[in-house]
Amino acid sequence: MSDTDQITPDDQTRHAQKMAKKKAARDRMMQTKTGEKGLVIVHTGSGKGKSSSGFGMIMRCIAHGMPCAVVQFIKGAWDTGERRLLTTHFADLCSFHAMGEGFTWETQDKSRDIAAAQAGWDRAKELIRDPQIRMVLLDEVNIALRYGYLDAAELVAFLTDEKPPMTHVVLTGRGAPEAVIGMADLVTEMTMIRHPFKAGIKAQAGVEF
Amino acid sequence: MSDTDQITPDDQTRHAQKMAKKKAARDRMMQTKTGEKGLVIVHTGSGKGKSSSGFGMIMRCIAHGMPCAVVQFIKGAWDTGERRLLTTHFADLCSFHAMGEGFTWETQDKSRDIAAAQAGWDRAKELIRDPQIRMVLLDEVNIALRYGYLDAAELVAFLTDEKPPMTHVVLTGRGAPEAVIGMADLVTEMTMIRHPFKAGIKAQAGVEF
Repeated sequence: MSDTDQITPDDQTRHAQKMAKKKAARDRMMQTKTGEKGLVIVHTGSGKGKSSSGFGMIMRCIAHGMPCAVVQFIKGAWDTGERRLLTTHFADLCSFHAMGEGFTWETQDKSRDIAAAQAGWDRAKELIRDPQIRMVLLDEVNIALRYGYLDAAELVAFLTDEKPPMTHVVLTGRGAPEAVIGMADLVTEMTMIRHPFKAGIKAQAGVEF
Repeated sequence: MSDTDQITPDDQTRHAQKMAKKKAARDRMMQTKTGEKGLVIVHTGSGKGKSSSGFGMIMRCIAHGMPCAVVQFIKGAWDTGERRLLTTHFADLCSFHAMGEGFTWETQDKSRDIAAAQAGWDRAKELIRDPQIRMVLLDEVNIALRYGYLDAAELVAFLTDEKPPMTHVVLTGRGAPEAVIGMADLVTEMTMIRHPFKAGIKAQAGVEF
Protein backbone atom coordinates (compact mmCIF):
# COMPACT_ATOMS: atom_id res chain seq x y z
CA MET A 1 0.00 0.00 0.00
CA SER A 2 2.80 2.46 0.80
CA ASP A 3 3.57 5.07 -1.82
CA THR A 4 6.96 5.74 -0.29
CA ASP A 5 9.13 4.53 -3.14
CA GLN A 6 7.20 5.70 -6.19
CA ILE A 7 6.87 9.50 -6.01
CA THR A 8 7.95 11.22 -9.21
CA PRO A 9 8.39 15.02 -9.52
CA ASP A 10 5.12 15.02 -11.53
CA ASP A 11 3.34 13.24 -8.69
CA GLN A 12 4.65 15.84 -6.28
CA THR A 13 3.39 18.72 -8.41
CA ARG A 14 -0.03 17.16 -8.94
CA HIS A 15 -0.32 16.44 -5.22
CA ALA A 16 0.67 20.01 -4.30
CA GLN A 17 -1.88 21.48 -6.73
CA LYS A 18 -4.65 19.21 -5.51
CA MET A 19 -3.88 20.03 -1.87
CA ALA A 20 -3.66 23.80 -2.55
CA LYS A 21 -7.15 23.60 -4.06
CA LYS A 22 -8.37 21.56 -1.10
CA LYS A 23 -6.89 24.04 1.34
CA ALA A 24 -8.54 26.99 -0.45
CA ALA A 25 -11.94 25.26 -0.34
CA ARG A 26 -11.40 24.37 3.30
CA ASP A 27 -10.36 27.90 4.24
CA ARG A 28 -13.52 29.29 2.62
CA MET A 29 -15.63 26.76 4.49
CA MET A 30 -13.87 27.47 7.81
CA GLN A 31 -14.64 31.18 7.46
CA THR A 32 -18.30 30.30 7.91
CA LYS A 33 -17.60 28.49 11.22
CA THR A 34 -17.22 31.39 13.60
CA GLY A 35 -19.82 30.75 16.27
CA GLU A 36 -19.08 29.76 19.83
CA LYS A 37 -21.66 28.15 22.02
CA GLY A 38 -22.00 25.97 25.07
CA LEU A 39 -22.94 22.60 23.63
CA VAL A 40 -25.18 19.80 24.76
CA ILE A 41 -23.12 16.74 23.82
CA VAL A 42 -24.46 13.17 23.86
CA HIS A 43 -22.39 9.99 23.70
CA THR A 44 -24.59 6.96 23.31
CA GLY A 45 -24.62 3.50 21.71
CA SER A 46 -23.32 0.14 22.92
CA GLY A 47 -19.68 0.63 21.91
CA LYS A 48 -16.75 1.64 24.08
CA GLY A 49 -15.56 5.22 24.43
CA LYS A 50 -18.60 7.07 25.77
CA SER A 51 -17.31 7.75 29.29
CA SER A 52 -13.62 7.80 28.37
CA SER A 53 -14.26 10.45 25.72
CA GLY A 54 -16.26 12.51 28.22
CA PHE A 55 -13.40 12.17 30.67
CA GLY A 56 -10.95 13.17 27.90
CA MET A 57 -12.94 16.38 27.30
CA ILE A 58 -12.95 17.14 31.03
CA MET A 59 -9.14 16.76 31.01
CA ARG A 60 -8.96 19.12 28.02
CA CYS A 61 -10.98 21.71 29.96
CA ILE A 62 -8.61 21.34 32.90
CA ALA A 63 -5.65 21.82 30.55
CA HIS A 64 -7.19 25.09 29.37
CA GLY A 65 -7.89 26.24 32.95
CA MET A 66 -11.66 25.97 32.49
CA PRO A 67 -13.52 25.07 35.71
CA CYS A 68 -15.59 21.92 35.24
CA ALA A 69 -17.43 19.17 37.12
CA VAL A 70 -18.28 15.46 36.89
CA VAL A 71 -21.45 13.85 38.21
CA GLN A 72 -21.42 10.05 38.10
CA PHE A 73 -24.90 8.57 38.08
CA ILE A 74 -24.26 4.83 38.32
CA LYS A 75 -20.69 4.03 39.20
CA GLY A 76 -20.89 5.11 42.81
CA ALA A 77 -17.83 4.62 44.94
CA TRP A 78 -15.77 2.68 42.39
CA ASP A 79 -12.11 3.57 42.50
CA THR A 80 -11.77 4.48 38.85
CA GLY A 81 -8.75 6.13 37.29
CA GLU A 82 -10.78 9.21 36.43
CA ARG A 83 -11.96 9.64 39.99
CA ARG A 84 -8.48 9.18 41.43
CA LEU A 85 -6.84 11.58 38.98
CA LEU A 86 -9.44 14.32 39.32
CA THR A 87 -9.67 14.23 43.11
CA THR A 88 -5.92 13.99 43.76
CA HIS A 89 -4.57 16.36 41.08
CA PHE A 90 -7.26 18.72 39.90
CA ALA A 91 -9.77 19.23 42.71
CA ASP A 92 -9.24 23.01 42.39
CA LEU A 93 -10.55 23.06 38.80
CA CYS A 94 -12.91 20.08 38.68
CA SER A 95 -15.30 18.86 41.35
CA PHE A 96 -16.21 15.18 41.34
CA HIS A 97 -19.59 13.90 42.53
CA ALA A 98 -20.11 10.14 42.71
CA MET A 99 -23.88 9.98 43.19
CA GLY A 100 -24.58 6.44 42.01
CA GLU A 101 -24.82 3.37 44.16
CA GLY A 102 -23.84 0.78 41.58
CA PHE A 103 -25.82 -1.01 38.91
CA THR A 104 -29.49 -1.53 39.51
CA TRP A 105 -28.91 -5.31 39.80
CA GLU A 106 -26.40 -4.61 42.59
CA THR A 107 -28.65 -2.41 44.70
CA GLN A 108 -31.81 -4.48 43.97
CA ASP A 109 -33.76 -1.58 45.42
CA LYS A 110 -35.73 0.54 42.99
CA SER A 111 -36.61 3.32 45.46
CA ARG A 112 -32.95 3.68 46.39
CA ASP A 113 -31.93 3.76 42.70
CA ILE A 114 -34.48 6.47 42.01
CA ALA A 115 -33.44 8.50 45.06
CA ALA A 116 -29.77 8.28 44.00
CA ALA A 117 -30.57 9.35 40.43
CA GLN A 118 -32.68 12.25 41.68
CA ALA A 119 -29.95 13.38 44.09
CA GLY A 120 -27.46 13.23 41.20
CA TRP A 121 -29.74 15.32 39.00
CA ASP A 122 -30.30 17.89 41.79
CA ARG A 123 -26.52 18.20 42.16
CA ALA A 124 -26.12 18.43 38.38
CA LYS A 125 -28.62 21.30 38.18
CA GLU A 126 -26.70 23.29 40.80
CA LEU A 127 -23.45 22.77 38.91
CA ILE A 128 -24.93 23.63 35.52
CA ARG A 129 -26.54 26.80 36.90
CA ASP A 130 -23.14 28.04 38.14
CA PRO A 131 -21.89 30.21 35.25
CA GLN A 132 -18.25 29.82 36.38
CA ILE A 133 -18.36 26.13 35.47
CA ARG A 134 -17.64 25.66 31.76
CA MET A 135 -18.33 21.93 31.34
CA VAL A 136 -20.42 19.45 33.34
CA LEU A 137 -20.10 15.74 32.56
CA LEU A 138 -23.19 13.71 33.49
CA ASP A 139 -21.63 10.27 33.32
CA GLU A 140 -24.09 7.41 32.64
CA VAL A 141 -27.07 9.74 33.05
CA ASN A 142 -28.64 8.17 29.95
CA ILE A 143 -29.00 4.91 31.90
CA ALA A 144 -30.99 6.66 34.63
CA LEU A 145 -33.15 8.29 31.95
CA ARG A 146 -33.70 5.00 30.15
CA TYR A 147 -34.87 3.25 33.33
CA GLY A 148 -37.26 6.14 33.97
CA TYR A 149 -35.42 7.04 37.19
CA LEU A 150 -35.15 10.58 35.85
CA ASP A 151 -37.66 12.43 33.73
CA ALA A 152 -36.26 13.10 30.25
CA ALA A 153 -38.74 15.92 29.57
CA GLU A 154 -37.67 17.72 32.74
CA LEU A 155 -33.99 17.33 31.82
CA VAL A 156 -34.58 18.67 28.31
CA ALA A 157 -36.57 21.64 29.63
CA PHE A 158 -33.85 22.46 32.15
CA LEU A 159 -31.05 22.32 29.57
CA THR A 160 -33.12 24.42 27.17
CA ASP A 161 -34.19 27.07 29.67
CA GLU A 162 -31.58 27.24 32.40
CA LYS A 163 -28.20 26.16 31.01
CA PRO A 164 -25.95 29.24 30.73
CA PRO A 165 -25.23 29.85 27.01
CA MET A 166 -21.49 29.09 27.19
CA THR A 167 -21.65 25.98 29.38
CA HIS A 168 -21.01 22.58 27.80
CA VAL A 169 -23.00 19.65 29.19
CA VAL A 170 -21.94 16.11 28.25
CA LEU A 171 -24.38 13.21 28.70
CA THR A 172 -23.07 9.66 28.40
CA GLY A 173 -24.55 6.18 28.50
CA ARG A 174 -26.27 3.81 26.13
CA GLY A 175 -29.89 4.28 25.18
CA ALA A 176 -30.15 8.08 25.26
CA PRO A 177 -33.86 8.98 24.93
CA GLU A 178 -35.03 10.48 21.63
CA ALA A 179 -36.00 13.73 23.35
CA VAL A 180 -32.44 14.22 24.55
CA ILE A 181 -30.94 13.33 21.16
CA GLY A 182 -33.39 15.72 19.54
CA MET A 183 -32.25 18.76 21.55
CA ALA A 184 -28.49 18.06 21.59
CA ASP A 185 -25.93 19.98 19.51
CA LEU A 186 -23.51 17.10 19.10
CA VAL A 187 -24.49 13.45 19.14
CA THR A 188 -22.15 10.52 18.61
CA GLU A 189 -23.21 6.91 18.61
CA MET A 190 -20.43 4.59 19.68
CA THR A 191 -21.06 1.37 17.76
CA MET A 192 -19.45 -1.84 18.93
CA ILE A 193 -17.68 -3.61 16.08
CA ARG A 194 -15.69 -6.00 18.28
CA HIS A 195 -15.24 -6.32 22.05
CA PRO A 196 -12.66 -8.42 23.92
CA PHE A 197 -15.24 -9.23 26.59
CA LYS A 198 -16.65 -11.78 24.18
CA ALA A 199 -13.23 -13.44 24.08
CA GLY A 200 -13.23 -13.87 27.88
CA ILE A 201 -11.15 -10.80 28.68
CA LYS A 202 -12.15 -8.92 31.81
CA ALA A 203 -12.32 -5.16 32.35
CA GLN A 204 -8.77 -3.86 32.65
CA ALA A 205 -7.12 -0.86 34.32
CA GLY A 206 -6.39 1.95 31.88
CA VAL A 207 -8.84 0.61 29.31
CA GLU A 208 -12.17 0.37 31.14
CA PHE A 209 -11.58 2.16 34.44
CA MET B 1 -41.68 9.02 32.43
CA SER B 2 -40.43 9.09 36.03
CA ASP B 3 -41.52 6.19 38.22
CA THR B 4 -40.76 8.13 41.35
CA ASP B 5 -44.27 8.49 42.69
CA GLN B 6 -45.80 5.14 41.83
CA ILE B 7 -43.77 2.46 43.57
CA THR B 8 -45.88 0.06 45.59
CA PRO B 9 -44.42 -2.52 48.00
CA ASP B 10 -45.31 -5.18 45.39
CA ASP B 11 -43.34 -3.26 42.74
CA GLN B 12 -40.38 -3.16 45.10
CA THR B 13 -40.49 -6.89 45.71
CA ARG B 14 -40.87 -7.74 42.02
CA HIS B 15 -38.01 -5.38 41.15
CA ALA B 16 -35.75 -6.89 43.84
CA GLN B 17 -36.48 -10.43 42.64
CA LYS B 18 -35.86 -9.53 39.01
CA MET B 19 -32.59 -7.78 39.85
CA ALA B 20 -31.41 -10.66 42.10
CA LYS B 21 -31.93 -13.01 39.14
CA LYS B 22 -30.13 -10.60 36.84
CA LYS B 23 -27.23 -10.31 39.26
CA ALA B 24 -26.91 -14.09 39.56
CA ALA B 25 -26.84 -14.46 35.76
CA ARG B 26 -24.32 -11.65 35.51
CA ASP B 27 -22.09 -13.08 38.21
CA ARG B 28 -22.03 -16.45 36.38
CA MET B 29 -21.15 -14.68 33.14
CA MET B 30 -18.45 -12.54 34.78
CA GLN B 31 -16.76 -15.67 36.16
CA THR B 32 -15.91 -16.61 32.58
CA LYS B 33 -14.18 -13.22 31.98
CA THR B 34 -10.89 -13.79 33.72
CA GLY B 35 -8.32 -13.16 31.02
CA GLU B 36 -5.97 -10.20 30.91
CA LYS B 37 -4.26 -9.18 27.71
CA GLY B 38 -2.67 -6.20 26.07
CA LEU B 39 -5.30 -5.08 23.58
CA VAL B 40 -5.14 -3.61 20.11
CA ILE B 41 -7.91 -1.00 20.28
CA VAL B 42 -9.26 0.84 17.22
CA HIS B 43 -11.44 3.99 17.28
CA THR B 44 -12.68 4.80 13.83
CA GLY B 45 -15.68 6.35 12.05
CA SER B 46 -16.58 9.94 11.27
CA GLY B 47 -18.07 10.82 14.66
CA LYS B 48 -16.49 12.71 17.53
CA GLY B 49 -14.77 10.98 20.43
CA LYS B 50 -12.00 8.95 18.78
CA SER B 51 -9.03 10.97 20.02
CA SER B 52 -10.68 12.23 23.20
CA SER B 53 -11.48 8.66 24.24
CA GLY B 54 -7.88 7.60 23.49
CA PHE B 55 -6.68 10.53 25.56
CA GLY B 56 -9.12 9.53 28.33
CA MET B 57 -7.62 6.02 28.42
CA ILE B 58 -4.10 7.48 28.61
CA MET B 59 -5.23 9.57 31.60
CA ARG B 60 -6.68 6.42 33.21
CA CYS B 61 -3.29 4.69 32.78
CA ILE B 62 -1.58 7.67 34.39
CA ALA B 63 -4.04 7.49 37.28
CA HIS B 64 -3.08 3.84 37.81
CA GLY B 65 0.65 4.64 37.62
CA MET B 66 1.06 2.75 34.32
CA PRO B 67 3.80 4.21 32.08
CA CYS B 68 2.38 5.14 28.67
CA ALA B 69 3.10 7.17 25.52
CA VAL B 70 1.32 9.21 22.85
CA VAL B 71 2.45 9.52 19.21
CA GLN B 72 0.50 12.11 17.22
CA PHE B 73 0.61 11.44 13.49
CA ILE B 74 -1.13 14.45 12.00
CA LYS B 75 -1.65 17.20 14.53
CA GLY B 76 1.97 18.33 14.68
CA ALA B 77 2.80 21.28 16.88
CA TRP B 78 -0.79 22.27 17.76
CA ASP B 79 -1.15 23.48 21.31
CA THR B 80 -3.87 21.04 22.31
CA GLY B 81 -5.14 20.52 25.83
CA GLU B 82 -3.90 16.94 25.84
CA ARG B 83 -0.39 17.97 24.86
CA ARG B 84 -0.24 20.73 27.46
CA LEU B 85 -1.56 18.55 30.27
CA LEU B 86 0.67 15.57 29.52
CA THR B 87 3.88 17.54 29.06
CA THR B 88 3.40 19.86 32.03
CA HIS B 89 1.95 17.45 34.61
CA PHE B 90 2.74 13.87 33.70
CA ALA B 91 5.97 13.81 31.68
CA ASP B 92 7.39 11.26 34.14
CA LEU B 93 4.70 8.68 33.30
CA CYS B 94 3.74 9.55 29.73
CA SER B 95 6.00 10.67 26.89
CA PHE B 96 4.42 12.79 24.15
CA HIS B 97 5.65 12.67 20.55
CA ALA B 98 4.11 15.12 18.08
CA MET B 99 5.35 13.68 14.79
CA GLY B 100 2.84 15.17 12.37
CA GLU B 101 3.23 18.35 10.38
CA GLY B 102 -0.43 19.22 9.99
CA PHE B 103 -3.05 18.11 7.54
CA THR B 104 -1.89 17.01 4.11
CA TRP B 105 -3.60 20.09 2.58
CA GLU B 106 -1.54 22.28 4.89
CA THR B 107 1.85 20.81 4.05
CA GLN B 108 0.99 20.32 0.33
CA ASP B 109 4.10 18.13 0.14
CA LYS B 110 3.54 14.42 -0.23
CA SER B 111 7.18 13.39 0.36
CA ARG B 112 7.24 15.39 3.57
CA ASP B 113 3.92 13.86 4.71
CA ILE B 114 5.25 10.38 4.06
CA ALA B 115 8.54 11.09 5.84
CA ALA B 116 6.67 12.47 8.87
CA ALA B 117 4.37 9.44 9.00
CA GLN B 118 7.31 7.07 8.69
CA ALA B 119 9.22 8.88 11.45
CA GLY B 120 6.11 8.65 13.65
CA TRP B 121 5.82 4.93 12.99
CA ASP B 122 9.53 4.35 13.73
CA ARG B 123 9.08 6.16 17.03
CA ALA B 124 5.90 4.17 17.74
CA LYS B 125 7.72 0.86 17.18
CA GLU B 126 10.42 1.81 19.69
CA LEU B 127 7.80 2.73 22.27
CA ILE B 128 5.70 -0.39 21.71
CA ARG B 129 8.78 -2.64 21.97
CA ASP B 130 9.61 -1.19 25.41
CA PRO B 131 7.89 -3.63 27.81
CA GLN B 132 7.81 -1.01 30.59
CA ILE B 133 5.28 1.00 28.59
CA ARG B 134 1.74 -0.31 29.19
CA MET B 135 -0.22 1.73 26.63
CA VAL B 136 0.78 3.50 23.41
CA LEU B 137 -1.76 5.82 21.75
CA LEU B 138 -1.19 6.25 17.99
CA ASP B 139 -3.38 9.30 17.47
CA GLU B 140 -4.72 9.73 13.90
CA VAL B 141 -2.53 6.89 12.62
CA ASN B 142 -5.52 5.57 10.64
CA ILE B 143 -5.35 8.71 8.48
CA ALA B 144 -1.72 8.00 7.57
CA LEU B 145 -2.68 4.39 6.78
CA ARG B 146 -5.64 5.45 4.67
CA TYR B 147 -3.52 7.79 2.55
CA GLY B 148 -1.01 4.97 2.06
CA TYR B 149 1.68 6.96 3.88
CA LEU B 150 2.19 3.92 6.09
CA ASP B 151 1.90 0.29 5.10
CA ALA B 152 -1.06 -1.36 6.87
CA ALA B 153 0.34 -4.87 6.32
CA GLU B 154 3.62 -3.93 7.99
CA LEU B 155 1.78 -2.37 10.94
CA VAL B 156 -0.42 -5.45 11.38
CA ALA B 157 2.61 -7.77 11.20
CA PHE B 158 4.47 -5.67 13.77
CA LEU B 159 1.56 -5.60 16.22
CA THR B 160 1.05 -9.36 15.76
CA ASP B 161 4.71 -10.37 16.11
CA GLU B 162 6.44 -7.75 18.24
CA LYS B 163 3.93 -6.13 20.59
CA PRO B 164 4.60 -7.33 24.16
CA PRO B 165 1.60 -9.41 25.31
CA MET B 166 0.48 -7.00 28.06
CA THR B 167 0.87 -3.73 26.12
CA HIS B 168 -2.27 -1.91 24.93
CA VAL B 169 -2.00 -0.09 21.60
CA VAL B 170 -4.76 2.37 20.65
CA LEU B 171 -5.17 3.45 17.01
CA THR B 172 -7.46 6.39 16.24
CA GLY B 173 -8.67 8.15 13.10
CA ARG B 174 -11.40 7.69 10.55
CA GLY B 175 -11.11 5.12 7.80
CA ALA B 176 -9.14 2.41 9.62
CA PRO B 177 -8.09 -0.18 7.01
CA GLU B 178 -9.86 -3.55 7.02
CA ALA B 179 -6.60 -5.36 7.84
CA VAL B 180 -6.24 -3.34 11.03
CA ILE B 181 -9.88 -3.82 12.03
CA GLY B 182 -9.50 -7.53 11.34
CA MET B 183 -6.64 -8.00 13.80
CA ALA B 184 -7.84 -5.68 16.60
CA ASP B 185 -9.29 -6.92 19.90
CA LEU B 186 -11.63 -3.96 20.45
CA VAL B 187 -13.10 -1.89 17.65
CA THR B 188 -15.52 1.00 18.08
CA GLU B 189 -17.00 3.00 15.25
CA MET B 190 -17.89 6.52 16.29
CA THR B 191 -20.90 7.43 14.15
CA MET B 192 -21.86 11.06 13.73
CA ILE B 193 -25.55 11.61 14.44
CA ARG B 194 -25.31 15.41 14.70
CA HIS B 195 -22.40 17.86 14.68
CA PRO B 196 -22.46 21.57 15.61
CA PHE B 197 -19.97 22.31 12.84
CA LYS B 198 -22.91 22.10 10.44
CA ALA B 199 -24.62 24.86 12.44
CA GLY B 200 -21.64 27.19 11.95
CA ILE B 201 -19.99 26.49 15.30
CA LYS B 202 -16.19 26.40 15.27
CA ALA B 203 -13.87 24.00 17.09
CA GLN B 204 -13.88 24.96 20.77
CA ALA B 205 -11.43 24.56 23.65
CA GLY B 206 -12.29 21.66 25.91
CA VAL B 207 -14.51 20.02 23.32
CA GLU B 208 -12.27 19.56 20.27
CA PHE B 209 -8.78 20.37 21.52
